[in-house]
Parts: sequence; structure tokens; C-alpha cells
Amino acid sequence: MLAVFNDAAVLRHALAFEARLAEAQAAEGVIAGADAAAIASACGSIPIDPAELADEAALAGTLAIPLVKRLRAELSGSAAAALHKGATSQDVADTVLACQIREAGALLQADLARTVGALTVLARRHASTPAIGRTLLQDALPIGFGLRIAHWTRGIEDARRRLAAETRSAAALQFGGAAGTRMGLDGKGRLIGRRLASALGLAEAPPWQSRRDAIAGLASALGIVIGMLGKFARDVSLLAQNAVGEAREPAMAGRGGSSAMAHKRNPTGCQVALSASLRAPGLVAGILAGLPTEEERGLGGWQAEGPALADLFLLAAGATEAMATVAEGLEVDETAIARNLAAAGIGTDIGESAALVADLLASND
Amino acid sequence: MLAVFNDAAVLRHALAFEARLAEAQAAEGVIAGADAAAIASACGSIPIDPAELADEAALAGTLAIPLVKRLRAELSGSAAAALHKGATSQDVADTVLACQIREAGALLQADLARTVGALTVLARRHASTPAIGRTLLQDALPIGFGLRIAHWTRGIEDARRRLAAETRSAAALQFGGAAGTRMGLDGKGRLIGRRLASALGLAEAPPWQSRRDAIAGLASALGIVIGMLGKFARDVSLLAQNAVGEAREPAMAGRGGSSAMAHKRNPTGCQVALSASLRAPGLVAGILAGLPTEEERGLGGWQAEGPALADLFLLAAGATEAMATVAEGLEVDETAIARNLAAAGIGTDIGESAALVADLLASND
Amino acid sequence: MLAVFNDAAVLRHALAFEARLAEAQAAEGVIAGADAAAIASACGSIPIDPAELADEAALAGTLAIPLVKRLRAELSGSAAAALHKGATSQDVADTVLACQIREAGALLQADLARTVGALTVLARRHASTPAIGRTLLQDALPIGFGLRIAHWTRGIEDARRRLAAETRSAAALQFGGAAGTRMGLDGKGRLIGRRLASALGLAEAPPWQSRRDAIAGLASALGIVIGMLGKFARDVSLLAQNAVGEAREPAMAGRGGSSAMAHKRNPTGCQVALSASLRAPGLVAGILAGLPTEEERGLGGWQAEGPALADLFLLAAGATEAMATVAEGLEVDETAIARNLAAAGIGTDIGESAALVADLLASND
Amino acid sequence: MLAVFNDAAVLRHALAFEARLAEAQAAEGVIAGADAAAIASACGSIPIDPAELADEAALAGTLAIPLVKRLRAELSGSAAAALHKGATSQDVADTVLACQIREAGALLQADLARTVGALTVLARRHASTPAIGRTLLQDALPIGFGLRIAHWTRGIEDARRRLAAETRSAAALQFGGAAGTRMGLDGKGRLIGRRLASALGLAEAPPWQSRRDAIAGLASALGIVIGMLGKFARDVSLLAQNAVGEAREPAMAGRGGSSAMAHKRNPTGCQVALSASLRAPGLVAGILAGLPTEEERGLGGWQAEGPALADLFLLAAGATEAMATVAEGLEVDETAIARNLAAAGIGTDIGESAALVADLLASND
Repeated sequence: MLAVFNDAAVLRHALAFEARLAEAQAAEGVIAGADAAAIASACGSIPIDPAELADEAALAGTLAIPLVKRLRAELSGSAAAALHKGATSQDVADTVLACQIREAGALLQADLARTVGALTVLARRHASTPAIGRTLLQDALPIGFGLRIAHWTRGIEDARRRLAAETRSAAALQFGGAAGTRMGLDGKGRLIGRRLASALGLAEAPPWQSRRDAIAGLASALGIVIGMLGKFARDVSLLAQNAVGEAREPAMAGRGGSSAMAHKRNPTGCQVALSASLRAPGLVAGILAGLPTEEERGLGGWQAEGPALADLFLLAAGATEAMATVAEGLEVDETAIARNLAAAGIGTDIGESAALVADLLASND
Repeated sequence: MLAVFNDAAVLRHALAFEARLAEAQAAEGVIAGADAAAIASACGSIPIDPAELADEAALAGTLAIPLVKRLRAELSGSAAAALHKGATSQDVADTVLACQIREAGALLQADLARTVGALTVLARRHASTPAIGRTLLQDALPIGFGLRIAHWTRGIEDARRRLAAETRSAAALQFGGAAGTRMGLDGKGRLIGRRLASALGLAEAPPWQSRRDAIAGLASALGIVIGMLGKFARDVSLLAQNAVGEAREPAMAGRGGSSAMAHKRNPTGCQVALSASLRAPGLVAGILAGLPTEEERGLGGWQAEGPALADLFLLAAGATEAMATVAEGLEVDETAIARNLAAAGIGTDIGESAALVADLLASND
Repeated sequence: MLAVFNDAAVLRHALAFEARLAEAQAAEGVIAGADAAAIASACGSIPIDPAELADEAALAGTLAIPLVKRLRAELSGSAAAALHKGATSQDVADTVLACQIREAGALLQADLARTVGALTVLARRHASTPAIGRTLLQDALPIGFGLRIAHWTRGIEDARRRLAAETRSAAALQFGGAAGTRMGLDGKGRLIGRRLASALGLAEAPPWQSRRDAIAGLASALGIVIGMLGKFARDVSLLAQNAVGEAREPAMAGRGGSSAMAHKRNPTGCQVALSASLRAPGLVAGILAGLPTEEERGLGGWQAEGPALADLFLLAAGATEAMATVAEGLEVDETAIARNLAAAGIGTDIGESAALVADLLASND
Repeated sequence: MLAVFNDAAVLRHALAFEARLAEAQAAEGVIAGADAAAIASACGSIPIDPAELADEAALAGTLAIPLVKRLRAELSGSAAAALHKGATSQDVADTVLACQIREAGALLQADLARTVGALTVLARRHASTPAIGRTLLQDALPIGFGLRIAHWTRGIEDARRRLAAETRSAAALQFGGAAGTRMGLDGKGRLIGRRLASALGLAEAPPWQSRRDAIAGLASALGIVIGMLGKFARDVSLLAQNAVGEAREPAMAGRGGSSAMAHKRNPTGCQVALSASLRAPGLVAGILAGLPTEEERGLGGWQAEGPALADLFLLAAGATEAMATVAEGLEVDETAIARNLAAAGIGTDIGESAALVADLLASND
């Protein structure tokens, strides 16, 4: 996930934007084919140090200015003039973000599916194992141990689906030019946009430079994914308490140790997910706060989105990977489960737990 | 909207839950028909002061305990025993919330549709009116004045649709009993749940007492609606500045005055929406923070949701109503628009603004 | 605490502002003494239904307009003209808020001191009782049981002191007139402000109508108080788990019951504090978000503060009261403490726990 | 500021912790002087690639484990055993954080003082320049132009002072050992702590590993600083609008340009500060949310703090540096100020603006 958001990825997507834009414009007759070829060639071969460009971009307040300047220096007359035609800085920045969203979303989907798959097996295996259910952190009534797992599973699965839908909406081309009017393109802006979106693997859309609801929807969906992983982690960490002992994380070489207590096995995976679930809500709030952006391009709002969205993806990736490992290796102690239930002294009637497990997981097959 | 969330509404929905639950259980043969009739009759006629019950609920930490106690006192032997059978406090609380969500969502949809309708007309009317576009609060290049309006419209419309979908998901029956297992219902829990959901106009679902992603999705959707109304409000407030003067809110008797400057016309509607858009992100964050809830019923998390969700609905309702009024009466000053554009001295080429307006609004008809 | 923030309190403080303002102006010779007397008399006797006025204020977008209108109708010529002289709506609103802050802060200090006092006794009593210490929810090494309590105590005490300081800063007079210049007061604005602040029991200060750092500091301090009470509550709820049993909340008639499980004793006080600690961070964020307010009076920002600050005070009051009761009645089970420590099998060396308890509590005497 | 929080700084502080700890323990006779000398020497000379160690720390979930392992490999028998004596991972992590807080705080104070100094001069220069005051984004009444500047100044100065106080509180030694009891130090823990704190330039304090109010206070103070810089930036960006033109940012080579509109001068400094003020509230909320940490060391909470606090410092540093530059070079256009005031047609009575400017700035000399 770090590779999706690093400087090299930004540069790669930005060069693809300029190259594919030129080709789309040539296909619509807005620039010459030879110029497009020269631009695409320059984008493919120009040697740029991503970190150096990132520094220049930080100074300029935008990536496009130093990038276009360098590319222009590689091109001659008409090709230099044809470069970046009808585009503006935010077109590059937002399209790069859209490409990153598409890639990051795919990574997450894979790890989330892994988690859901492992939990589905576990939930069904323990669907009818009587265990004490707990409410408000107090022993309540018996449940099937798998019912709790099935709730984790369904919660993560529903969150995964929302995320998939929001990712599709947000992974959309941004191409509008300086004021978002697609000026200077001989009325071919829409056709160019269609070609460009297709070439970049993005959804076609009207410019969205100051209409950021899709980004906010994506951020929220990430926050919910992280929160549902946090729910899973919270329960595992409670079950793993020494006095409870019903389940614990798999042992991992090099993880979960203590510099002072060598015997301890810490719930390190849960820690990753719970830490993420503490940070995520505020990051989502930061993105929501930027929605009332000013006029055709806001001052501060959209600039705040990028880092927060990258943080959310990184937190989600870390939490998903950690909890996929926990799901795949969760150690369930049936003896402890039975002992704790017996201690509560309230029988073993688990009601319709098994049927509920089936219902909760029905859509996962 | 206040009426959706006041004490009387809570009581009304809670009584409906108990009455319809008894009827569903009688239909499945779990309790006697006569007992169900007695329960439904008591629920329909019992005189309760909503505020008094709310005080008792605040002390008990749950509404169901004092309510069930009062109802039981109205009923004799078998009916008293049949009341609230297989249910728990959170079943009542969450189902009440689901009913409120359904009603509040419907109210919002109506006002949002009004806003979108009024803005659609306005955007088309001014689609080709050349105006100065502004980026980073600086004059940039010309746009069609209606293009800015079309962006407001599309943003609010997309947010409205997300809200509609999330409202449907969240307006779901909660019925699981003390530990969420539907214990003590002779295996008829699912069938009872189906009947109960249908009778209350809610979606059927497995219990979700400690799986709160749908509530979080709804909260986020409300936050995004508020943010997009805030975007509309931000722009109107900027356009209404004395030095700009391109648009302003309709004058309303009794609103927007100043206790010290009688001549002023303040953008009071925008103020309502912008104030809401400052408060909403934190409220959403609060609900996301509660997702990692403990085991079968969390300690603190779901109790925090109700007030925050009600606040979000109230803020959304206030912002929507205010901005619907602004949308319907927005005063556009074409002379000022032309003057400001001329002052920028950059011509009147508005590119493909009119086509973009059509695209942005295509789905609103 | 509800009484500090209800409509009646708002009205009472607003009338005090107008009355004391007139008296201060008369003392400085800016209005006639007889007019000031008439104004103060009207403020003392005018019959106003607080709820009705609140409705009018909601429509007008400000309390001052309908209030001043009603007062003027009670007054004749020169007194009517002298009323509200040099003041503006926000002067009334912010000064009312400052008065509420002063009163709410005093209430909180009392309950926090009660909590700290009870916990100090408890921490000292158990300073040397060996208990298992837990890190990352796993058994770690022995501690003095009172050391954990001493940390709760010190955390709450430090938060209380920060709150006291921020309350003093924020409980400051706002008096600046329409643009914050103290215009129309014959150059006597500062002297009038000094008298007015003194009469209202507020700190004297230059106008702060669009400089809201003191409010943000107060909100943060409230959030920290709530969070430290949440820390205390988190630990008690973990200690009260059936499998741990080292401490639990005192039993309270009518609280902590379950509508489905009569035998349960739920940690209801902890629930109140933990619920508050989930909601508070977002409310603080909402107030911080409003700091970049526009020019001489912001659009949306300061209007968002009032309800959020009132919510924070109410949450803090609820959490403090609940946890004061828990502190005063906490049931500590030394047998369970010893049993859990023995089960860990790591001895009873509690290091310098007793000395640390003394250090942590040193400032509380 | 990046250098304060990078991997090399973390390593440097961690090595200093281990070296100074050994020396303090030797001074108290808890380990041998020769061992302490060997440890300090190893800490001074061991070649470690900070990035490599950071990767190992990420895997282990803590920096101390891989660092101590490497150091031990450099030491022989008794010195190896004496290393890290009585300490735990979080002692290292939190003390490193405390050192970073001290350094970061000092950097910020310098840039904030620069900003306040420049604004103080500016406010006094324009104290009596009549200008239009604006409330709710509408022309209101005249003010001294310097009064607005004086409010920026005072707000930033008050926020700076709160930050200085919170920085002092939070820059405190953490030294408690595995469960925070200072076990295994022959009762010399407190004396060792005193020496260690002094050697590291930190405040002496009892362990605070699960009592995080000082960190939350610091985070809030950073959020308020950022918000007050945002207030200054908001106003400058509004004044710099083409239709207003009363002030604008200094021109800077390579900044504020547009890739599509070469003539534009964008308020890039304001953008940095406003972007920071959108992100900061959520980051503060994330830290507040972690306060209810579990028992002797929380699971997720304190692990979430580090990155959020670093982000807050980086945002604060970026915003402060940007706005210091704006303050030092702000271009004020008196002609535009006069023109806009005249257009409002409400005279030039600026009340007590000059006296208020003096009051607001009185404490800055």
C-alpha cells in the first residue's frame, strides 16, 4: 500500500495522464498525431527523480508546474505547445489520486476477502458451540461461539461492499481545465475525456474539482471498514485476556514480544486494528470538513484531502492485513469456552444461534 | 424533524414495537392470541406522559425497563407474562431508532428533492451566462454562471441518493433478545422477526445490536449531505459579498436582520448550512469511533449513537430547509455578473459550460 | 447542569446584560441615570416566556433582536433609546455564554473535587496491595492496586486544573458593538466594559467576537476531563468483568438493571462516562474547526459553538456525577485481586508502587 | 520540523535514553560504573541505519526490542545485563516522544514569535486607518484596519502561550518499567528518574504511560495554534479577492503560480494554513479518543498518538512558517481600503479602534 502512495507512483500516474491526454486529443484531431507521439515518448523516457520532483512540487504548491516544465524542455515547438493542453494542475492531481484510489481499493478488496473467507469458515465451525455471551462487559446469556464470529464477518463483508461501491465512484477522471469548463478544445472536451478515462482505467465523469462528495464517501467507507475490523479486534483482545482465554492471536515470530517480559504474548494484530480505529474517525472528519469548498477550486479543502485519504488507506491496509492474519490463525480454546460458560451457571440454550450464523453468512458464498 | 426525535415519538414507536411483537408471536403460535390482543390494546390506550417516562428511562439507563413495568401493571397473568417475550432493552431502543430513521429520512428526501428541483431550473437558465470563475478565491477564467449551480445541484443530488440507500439499510428491525440469539421463541424467532419488520415498515435483518456499520454509513451520508449543502451555502455567501454582488439570498421577513445595523441583509440561510457543516464532521467521527463495540452489546458505543444521529438529522433538516428556501428564491444579478467578468479582462469564452450543465443534470429529470 | 443551559438561564443572563450595561453607561455619564434605572427595572420585571422567546430567536437568528424589541415596548422615549446602546447581538450571545461557562465550570469543579477526594482515599488505602498489572490487556507484572487508582486520580486532578484555568479565560465579557469597535460611547467603552464585567462577575477583556481561542481551549479542557473520566471508567469496567471481579460499581436502586436478565449488575456509571468519551472528541473537533472565522464576525463558526459547548458541559457533568458516585462507592474485592495475582505466578514484587502513589497524590492535600 | 520526527531523530533520542539511563543508575549505585561507561560508549558509536531499524521496529511493534538486541550484541557480560535495566519499550517510546516534543515546541515558538512580531508592527501602523468592517461576510461598520490585524496577533499570541505551557508539561520523562512500578531498582527508581530527566532536558514526573492528558493538552494547543493561523489566513484570503483587494500575500518566486493561468497570484501561504486548519481538528479528536486507555498500558490508544502528534507538529510548522512569511510581507493597499469604505457609505467613525489595538497588543512588548 505504501507503494501506491509514494512519490514514484505519483510521478508514474502524472506522466500517464499527460501521455494519454495527448493521445486522446490527437485521436479527436485537437493536436497533431506526431506531437502526441512525441509527448507520449517523452513521458515514457524522461528521467526524473520522484523525490526531487516532490520537493519542487511542495514549493510550487502543485505537481503539474515543475513536471510540465521538465517535459516541455524535452520537446520541441509544436509538441511542447500541445503538452498539457486544456489541462490544469488540479486535473493532474485529482486524476493521480483517482488512479491511486483504484489501485489501493483493489489491494484492500483482496485482503478483506481473505479475512471474510477465513472468518466464514471459523463461524460455521463454531456455530453451535455454546459459549457465554456478554453484554456491557458482563456475562449475559449463552450464545453459539460462532455467532459472535459471524457478526464480525458480516460487518466486515458489508463494509467491504460499501467500500467497493464508493471506490468505483471515486476512481473517476478529473479533466476540466483551469476553471472546469473544458475550454480551448474545439468542443471536443467530452470526447477527449471519454477516451482519456478509458485509457487510464477510470470512470468517465464531468469535472469534480470542487464537488468532493465521492471522496468523502470513500473516506467514510474506509472509516467504516477500519471500525468493523476494530470491532473484530476488540473482541479478540477481550477473549484473549488471561482470565478469559477463549481465543487468541496466532503466535508470530518477531511480533507481540515485550522488551521487559519475554513470556508475554501480546495481541499485536488487534493493537494495529484498534489503533487504526482510533485514528480513522478524525481523518474522516477532516475530509468531511473540506466539503464546503470555495467556488471553482477551494482554498485549503482539497489540498487537505490527499494526505488524509492516503493515511486512511494505509491504516485500512495495515488493519486488514493484521486482522486477516488473526482470522486465518485464530486459536480458539473450547475448554476455556466451556469453563467460562459453566461458571456463569445459566445453562447452554443458545437459541437460534446456528440459524442466525447461516443467515449472516448467506451472502458470502 | 424535532417531532421525529422527541419523547412522544420514542414512546409511540416503543409501544408499536411491543404491540406488533405480541401480534407476530401470536400469529406464530408462540403466545396466545388473546394475550396479544390484550397487549396491543394496552399499548394503544395506556396513558403515559412521554417526558415522565423519559426521566425514568434516563435513571434506569434504558427505556424498556420502566415502559414494560408500566405495561405489565395494566395486564393480567398470561398477558403480562407474554409481554416483551424474547426481547431486550436494546431491541426496543434500536427498533425505535430504526423507525425514526425511516421517518426522518423521508422528510429529508422531500426537502432535498425540492432543493435539487429549484437548482436544476436555475442552472439551466444561467447555463450560458458568462461569469468569472474563481479558483483559490482569485479570478481565474470565464465559466457559465449555471455551471457553478449545476455543480451544487449534482453534488446535493448524489449525496441525496447515497442518503436514500443508507437510510434503507439502517431502517432495519432489531430483534434478538438478551444476547442476540432469539432464545425462548420455540425456533420461531426468524418468522416472528419477518412479521414484526413488515408490520413496522422496516427491513428484515438479523440482529445488529453490536454490528453498527449501517448506522455509521447513515451518519456519514448525512455528513456528506450537510457538506454539500455547505458547499452551496459557501458559494452563495461569497457571491453575496457587497464587493461581488452576483447573487444573494431572498429577503425573508424576520430573518437576517441585525440588532445594531437595520439596513443589513445577512445570509442567514447560508449561516445555518455552514454552521451545520462545521458541526457535522465531528458528530460523524463520534459515531465511527463507537464501531469497535464490545462483544454482544457494547459499553458506551451504541449509547452514544442516538443523540449524535438525532443531531445529524436535525442539522441536516435545518440546513436543507434553509437552503431549499435559498434555492427557490435566489436573486441572481446579471449586471453584477457581467461587470465582474469585464473587470477581469479575460474575455467571455466559457468553453463547454452548457454541455457540462446538461451532463451534470442529466439524471435529475 | 441542564438548568445552566436552558432557555430560562439564557433569558436571565441576557436581561442582566442589558440592565448592567445601562447602569455602567449611566455611571460613565453616557446615558441618563433615570434611563438606566428604568431599563434595569424593566429587565427585572418584564414577563417573558423563555421558550417563546427562544422560538423567536431561532427565527431571527439571534436572541437580541426579539428581546430588545420587547424591552423597548416597555420603555418610553429616552430610556427606549438608551437601551442596548453600543451593543450588538453577539455581545449579548457571547456574554450569556460566558455567564453560563462560569456557572457550569463551578458545578463541574465541585463534582470533580468530590471524585478526586474519594479516589485519593481509595488509592492510599490500597497503595501496597499487590495486584496483577496488565498491559495490552495481558497480565504483566505486579503493581500496588492503589497505583492504578492513583493514576486515575492524578489524571482527573490535572484535567480539573486545566479546566479551571481555561474556564477563567473563557468566562470573559464580550462587549464591542456591531463591528467590535465600541463606537458611539464617547470614548468611554473601555471604562463601561470594566464596570460591566465586574457587575456580571466576568473577566474584563477586549472584544473576542471573532477570536475564539479561549472557547476552543475550554472545549479541549472539557474533552480531556471527559477522557480522563473515561480512563477511570474503562478500567473499572474491565475490573468488573465476571472473570476478573477485582472491583465493581456500587449497586444503585433503579440503575444498571436489564429488561431481560434481572440478576445482572451492569456498570452503568462507567457506561455514561465511556459514552461521553466517545462523543466528546468530535464535539471538540467541531469547535476547533470553527476557529478560522471570517473577519469581524464569522458565518457559521461561532453559531456552531454554543450547542457543541453545551453538549460538552452536559456530557462532562453526566460523566463526572456518574464517576463521583462510582468513586465514592467502589467495591474492591481483595480476595479476587489476590487470586488473579496468584494465577499469574509472577510473585508479588510491586516495586516502588507505594512511593509512586504518594508522589502522584502529593498535590491533592 | 521533519528532522525532529524522522527515523534518525528517533534513534538518536533512544540511544540517549539508554546511555543516560545507565549513567544515572551507576550514579545511584544500581549498576557498575564501568558497565555504564561501556553502555554509553556503545550508544555513542554503534552504527545503525535508522531506516533499517525502523523496519524492524514496525515488525516487532516496538523500537526497543530490536535496538536493545543490537546494543546487547555490542556489549559483554555484565554491561549487556545492565543495559535497559528496569526499563520497558514504552519508556523508550514515550521518552523519545518527549524529546521530540521539546525540540518541536522550540522550533514552533520561534516561528510563532516571528509572526506575532511582524503582525504587531503592522497592527500598530494601521491602527487608525478607517476600513470597512465585515460581519457574516457583509459590510457592517467602519473599523481601524489595524484592529483586525491586532485580533489576529492576539489570537496567535494567546495560542502560542498555551502551547508553551502544554509543551513544558508534555516534555516529561517516562520511566516506569514493565508495569510502571520502577521494580528492580533497589528503591532508587525515583532518584534515577530525577537524574535521567535532568540529563535528557526533560521534566521529572511519575510514569505517565497510561495517563495521557498532557499529550492531549499539547495536541489541543497545537490545534488551537493552527486554528488561529487559519483565522489570519482566512481573512487575508478574503481581503485578497480581486473585488476586494485590500491586502495580499507577498509575491514569492516559484510559489502561487498556476499551470494554466500564468498571470494569477494565488494565496498559497493562506492555502497552507487553511488546509492545516481543516486537518487539525480531526487529528486532535483522534488523540482525545485514545484517552480512555486500558489499565497499565493501553491497546491501540497510545500507539495511535505518535503519528497524529507528529502530523500536528508538521501542520503547525508548515502553517506557522507560511504565515510568518505572509505577516512579514503582507501588502496592504490603502487605496482599496478607502475605496471599499467609501462604497459602503457609512462614514469613517472607527470608535475606540486605536485604544483596542493598544490593549490587544499590550502584552507583546
